[in-house]
Amino acid sequence: MKCSILAIGNEVVSGDIVNTNAVTIANYLKEFGIQTISHIAVPDLEEPIVKAIKRSLKEADLVITTGGMGPTYDDITKQAAAKALNRKLVRDDYSVEILNLYFQKSGRDMPSGNLSQCFFPNGSQIIQNPNGTAPASITQTPKGTLIMLPGPPIEVKALLATEEFRDFFSQHKTEEIIETTLKFFGIGESHLEKLLADYMKEEKHIRLAPYAKTGEVHLKITAKGKTKKEAQKRTDALKKNIDALAGQYLYTEGNDTIEEVLLKILKKYHLTVATAESCTGGMIGAALTAIPGSSESYLGGVITYSNELKQSLCGVKETTLETYGAVSQATACEMAAGARRRLGADIAISVTGIAGPGGSSADKPVGLVYIGISSKDRTNAIRFHFMGTREKVRQLTVKNALHLAFMQAKNLGKEQSGN
Amino acid sequence: MKCSILAIGNEVVSGDIVNTNAVTIANYLKEFGIQTISHIAVPDLEEPIVKAIKRSLKEADLVITTGGMGPTYDDITKQAAAKALNRKLVRDDYSVEILNLYFQKSGRDMPSGNLSQCFFPNGSQIIQNPNGTAPASITQTPKGTLIMLPGPPIEVKALLATEEFRDFFSQHKTEEIIETTLKFFGIGESHLEKLLADYMKEEKHIRLAPYAKTGEVHLKITAKGKTKKEAQKRTDALKKNIDALAGQYLYTEGNDTIEEVLLKILKKYHLTVATAESCTGGMIGAALTAIPGSSESYLGGVITYSNELKQSLCGVKETTLETYGAVSQATACEMAAGARRRLGADIAISVTGIAGPGGSSADKPVGLVYIGISSKDRTNAIRFHFMGTREKVRQLTVKNALHLAFMQAKNLGKEQSGN
Repeated sequence: MKCSILAIGNEVVSGDIVNTNAVTIANYLKEFGIQTISHIAVPDLEEPIVKAIKRSLKEADLVITTGGMGPTYDDITKQAAAKALNRKLVRDDYSVEILNLYFQKSGRDMPSGNLSQCFFPNGSQIIQNPNGTAPASITQTPKGTLIMLPGPPIEVKALLATEEFRDFFSQHKTEEIIETTLKFFGIGESHLEKLLADYMKEEKHIRLAPYAKTGEVHLKITAKGKTKKEAQKRTDALKKNIDALAGQYLYTEGNDTIEEVLLKILKKYHLTVATAESCTGGMIGAALTAIPGSSESYLGGVITYSNELKQSLCGVKETTLETYGAVSQATACEMAAGARRRLGADIAISVTGIAGPGGSSADKPVGLVYIGISSKDRTNAIRFHFMGTREKVRQLTVKNALHLAFMQAKNLGKEQSGN
Repeated sequence: MKCSILAIGNEVVSGDIVNTNAVTIANYLKEFGIQTISHIAVPDLEEPIVKAIKRSLKEADLVITTGGMGPTYDDITKQAAAKALNRKLVRDDYSVEILNLYFQKSGRDMPSGNLSQCFFPNGSQIIQNPNGTAPASITQTPKGTLIMLPGPPIEVKALLATEEFRDFFSQHKTEEIIETTLKFFGIGESHLEKLLADYMKEEKHIRLAPYAKTGEVHLKITAKGKTKKEAQKRTDALKKNIDALAGQYLYTEGNDTIEEVLLKILKKYHLTVATAESCTGGMIGAALTAIPGSSESYLGGVITYSNELKQSLCGVKETTLETYGAVSQATACEMAAGARRRLGADIAISVTGIAGPGGSSADKPVGLVYIGISSKDRTNAIRFHFMGTREKVRQLTVKNALHLAFMQAKNLGKEQSGN
């Protein structure tokens, strides 16, 4: 099955936003063995949309549009699609009900413009939008299938994750594909690639692809087979070889992020964690609390951006700040130890650093970060020197802090079990 | 002049990388009054490339390709272009010289594959690449102009910045374009459109387009004119009309985000802010500290995810939590007032809510959030009911909290100036 992805919107064509939806969709389709053969982006104008839909349906079996499903005058994807498919737009009463409910809950009247979001080409299957007011649709025609999704990436992701869409795409699977991701920390992409050079090539039934992520490297294994079992066997053989060569850097297999891996091990060993953040300003707390159920293990934290708050909230000594400065191993240690005691957690993570672009000095360059880890019996801080923009430095700090907390939790868990 | 941007490469089509070149090029072209009418991405296969070039030259005056200019077997853009234009590929001796020099300087022998980078469709103007080995080309034909650029974004940017390319595009400048964005809070996209219905249509010289963002709406004005002054005059006239109808929802004009607008007004009035976050777990602090220089106004905060920390760090009373619960107006008020006092800030923002998917009850549904604002003379909390996933609820909470803080800072500033 071949797919063409069609973005509709002036904001995409004119370069106001990057078309990340195309990336999301192409990667999602891979999972179902569906190949993307082109991306197209056209403005909010009827003629180019009609032309692009007709043309794409000739070249692909499946056309997925994004954008132009909003309530305003320039949202014309569905009208254009109806024209391209030669079908009428009909009202979906269930969508009207859902939309009324949505506005009722928000305590607002439904503007009449929103009603247009409930009209779809005749014969379409409608899929409700968990993150917005525009439902999506699947329209099957003799020439191929047209799927229409709204534009906001957060809505596209939520819609593709629905059971309805997963069911639809699952029907089109012809061979079994197993994908799994091995996640590594503490080793660079080219170093890992060198270690695994014998396995880094395109094979007929199995493919190993490295992806450098912020602070970590992911290896994606894609194995094909007539049966799941066959694909799994191929995957397992390759994994065994990888583990022998680079196992010490592997922190997890699958889709879990480092924050999820950390929260799972904390839960397993009934441990709690707290945070004391300076240069990341709350990003570690935000990352942990993005995971539902994190309240079981994450108690909370302090954001001690100013020196005064490092003292009053974490109990960092004034002499420490005077002697070593806010960005120092000593301060990171006192922040972690103080936060652990005051917040009553088993483990506390602290970070203090210079994210840039300002604030550096000769001996304290941009990117210098200390990450502290404290548990009952030991407190320590590690020095990092990250390269890149403010955003990159902060992201690398978060990832490394979470990874250190994970290692600490693993050690504490082992000690517990050993007793 | 109308342009179509054509990305060539399996890595784009399959979703391994985001097509940021299209954004770079579209924005670059705006400067010269050249309108982009479509983006296309096709794989490294001759037939789709030939087809896409031919088709795009029919619809646009100018086609710019990116990618497929490397030295390896799968780089076939120029062969395909030669076929599409029905021209021979000829060797550019100057490029061979430059390339030889490049390898000499690097102390390496030139691999034979690189020679292919010096062949171009007959009659092309060749432009040397400041950041790589693949030169670019401009080929003028009776059907339109074809420009071929390499794929790496850093090379695309360097090439577009060359005098040769700037000269080429300057010849085609026929009108001046001014763009500006007005940002609104507290009004939905369709409501705003209704208010401004008279101006929401395609005009010859000016265009007003609404974009719904998480929690806010942006209106983009694009004005054209023979001179900058003429375009500016058109922009100003429209802005005046918009201001009269929807000015109370407008929070800024330009590219600043709500966090930047907040930090600027805090700085202007020498005010400081602190945060007390529950369901957002540090996201507000993270958003503020993402801005360089935020330490001038943002002191820090507390992340009181557990009830115990709401008491110990913010001083929320046990009876308040027992009587009203953690997600309540009373708790939000005590969090804000407590954080303000303990952290010593002029303004404190607090949030407590149910981000979901768990944790709800009959009278406290998912999406229920209280945002508290405290300053010296007044503390208040507002009830919100947000719709969507955990991620969406948290993002909406952050935006609304920042907006409330902005309104408060504006009021405090006005009172100060009034004294």
